[in-house]
Amino acid sequence: MSRADRLAQAVAAEGLDQLSVADLVNPGDSGREAQADVFWLTGFTGTSAMCVVGTDDRMFLTDFRYTQRAEREVDAAFERVEAEGQPLAELAKRLAGRVGYDDAKTSVRALRRLEAAVGEDVELVAAEGLVGALRRAKDEEELRRIAVAAELGDAVYEWICERGLGGRTEREVQLGAEQRMRELGAAGPAFPTIVAAGENAALPHHEASGREIGTGELVIIDMGAIVDGYCSDCTRTFATGDLDAEAAEVYELVRSTQASALEAVAAGVSGKDADAVSRGPIAAGGHADHYGHGLGHGVGIEVHEAPRLSMRSEDTLAAGDVVTVEPGVYVPGRFGVRIEDLVAITDDGVRNLSSLSKELRVIA
Amino acid sequence: MSRADRLAQAVAAEGLDQLSVADLVNPGDSGREAQADVFWLTGFTGTSAMCVVGTDDRMFLTDFRYTQRAEREVDAAFERVEAEGQPLAELAKRLAGRVGYDDAKTSVRALRRLEAAVGEDVELVAAEGLVGALRRAKDEEELRRIAVAAELGDAVYEWICERGLGGRTEREVQLGAEQRMRELGAAGPAFPTIVAAGENAALPHHEASGREIGTGELVIIDMGAIVDGYCSDCTRTFATGDLDAEAAEVYELVRSTQASALEAVAAGVSGKDADAVSRGPIAAGGHADHYGHGLGHGVGIEVHEAPRLSMRSEDTLAAGDVVTVEPGVYVPGRFGVRIEDLVAITDDGVRNLSSLSKELRVIA
Repeated sequence: MSRADRLAQAVAAEGLDQLSVADLVNPGDSGREAQADVFWLTGFTGTSAMCVVGTDDRMFLTDFRYTQRAEREVDAAFERVEAEGQPLAELAKRLAGRVGYDDAKTSVRALRRLEAAVGEDVELVAAEGLVGALRRAKDEEELRRIAVAAELGDAVYEWICERGLGGRTEREVQLGAEQRMRELGAAGPAFPTIVAAGENAALPHHEASGREIGTGELVIIDMGAIVDGYCSDCTRTFATGDLDAEAAEVYELVRSTQASALEAVAAGVSGKDADAVSRGPIAAGGHADHYGHGLGHGVGIEVHEAPRLSMRSEDTLAAGDVVTVEPGVYVPGRFGVRIEDLVAITDDGVRNLSSLSKELRVIA
Repeated sequence: MSRADRLAQAVAAEGLDQLSVADLVNPGDSGREAQADVFWLTGFTGTSAMCVVGTDDRMFLTDFRYTQRAEREVDAAFERVEAEGQPLAELAKRLAGRVGYDDAKTSVRALRRLEAAVGEDVELVAAEGLVGALRRAKDEEELRRIAVAAELGDAVYEWICERGLGGRTEREVQLGAEQRMRELGAAGPAFPTIVAAGENAALPHHEASGREIGTGELVIIDMGAIVDGYCSDCTRTFATGDLDAEAAEVYELVRSTQASALEAVAAGVSGKDADAVSRGPIAAGGHADHYGHGLGHGVGIEVHEAPRLSMRSEDTLAAGDVVTVEPGVYVPGRFGVRIEDLVAITDDGVRNLSSLSKELRVIA
């Protein structure tokens, strides 16, 4: 069954006549992530698009800038309409009955305008995440794209290792990696590549800086590529020479924890339980306070999407999910280690999309 | 007066006790543009930040990931607080009285959660654009950053011209330009660089493709850089050899129209009137239907911000505005021309931040 047909079923099951699938925060000027639902549903890659889906509705609205692109890209089941006026007014004209909208992707201002513009027969109903729930289960083509993005990322890691780390600045390594990614065919990085050396690696969201990478340090490199609209996400921590005993010990703690967590993720396991598997050994190693993020997150069109693997997650893993498994330990002012694989949950286990070794690798 | 003090005045003038300055669509995971208000107000560059400003309030909230960065970056007038729980709950705890929020940057879902979390003494009031209005008037340091970004972009144009266009694909030119931008010190492109050759140039939002650039074509290159958090934006249209008479004529039409529009923009002129100045000659040239966008837009932390220069604009230009002036003509299936400068509106005229010639330049 097509994506639009499955969505129409979900819309009817919610007691809705229609669902508007659109970024209603910046309609007409939406970034890639804000348009992820539309891209999944229709294949459209532009910044201006709104869809209406119901049992008998398959409508795609864009503006004059994208009419030709829409002809090329948008699933033929959709009626393609060029909107001439303000996006919200054009959308309002096409709505009828009980209409769901994603309240997490609709601004208060846009809702007020939409309410003022719709006919009296329209009831607007908050309906978050209907598309997001369907996006969780990746089909073969989606898995292929994510796997290609992951392979491309792995090739960039190898290229980084061949060039070496010592004496380069974090920023040089970042720029080189992102350029290499593009040369290999990626649309770009899935997020700004993190290169964090020495004490900077203790900051989980450090950005690459002008700091020169020394010897005998740990260097976290967290990197993903976008290929055909899908993201990869991987982290490795390298040493640039002999480590002191504590750093080596923490590396080994994170490595073995990550291996245990990989064993634990499977269809039917809750995101909370998977996270707990990683939290135990790190706490036992005396670093409970040094692991301040969740075990992982879904990856697809967005680099952070459902499901979540964390202490607060309410998700349960299912076949088709693609998730990261990425415990870390960050010792303030000193060093940090994070190791992250990207895995696809299957009916009979997991498929690890990251091919790089996780043994401590010394890169001069 | 500091930015926070000016904002506090504006908040009081609106009859509010406090204003929350925050991305309440993706709190805790905000992109650069969603955080533009926070960056302007405090200097903070991370993805998780919420501020509360009132006569006696200067509060900055982030989470554990960014505590150290906040210490380094955030204006010292702000009390820096590390939030431990869910962002909206942590924000709610700090609110009191009549509290404004930006309804264009708050999701319906987030508002519902915030309403549930605040105390009974809190009244939440939609208050869009208070920071945006102050952001329009760029100070000297902001103008300096934008000018540096523009100069850097100009250097990239010269580099492109030296390397030539013919025989390269649009995508190669794009990637080379963006790499060069980074080598020269930009954080990255302000938006995906547009390289559109031949009939692709007739699509105002064409993305660079694998199409090879031929000879005797027009090539639109629309490019901006980010430097120290501020954007530039410039467009030039080059020829790759002798043009046919119609293309040459349209180039000249756009060039002279752009020159007239540059003469027209000034403090006190409405965005609508400035736009109209550009629409007249293009209509007279028989291309009224081939100019489907506005004359320009403000540029600063965001590459599209207030004010707007368009048929529907309600803004009036004022000293301190930095805006683009970018008429274009797009002949479907054949070719397109756009010429764009970035100008700062001053008390006694404009300062053009783009130094490149607008005479037709032939690049083999």
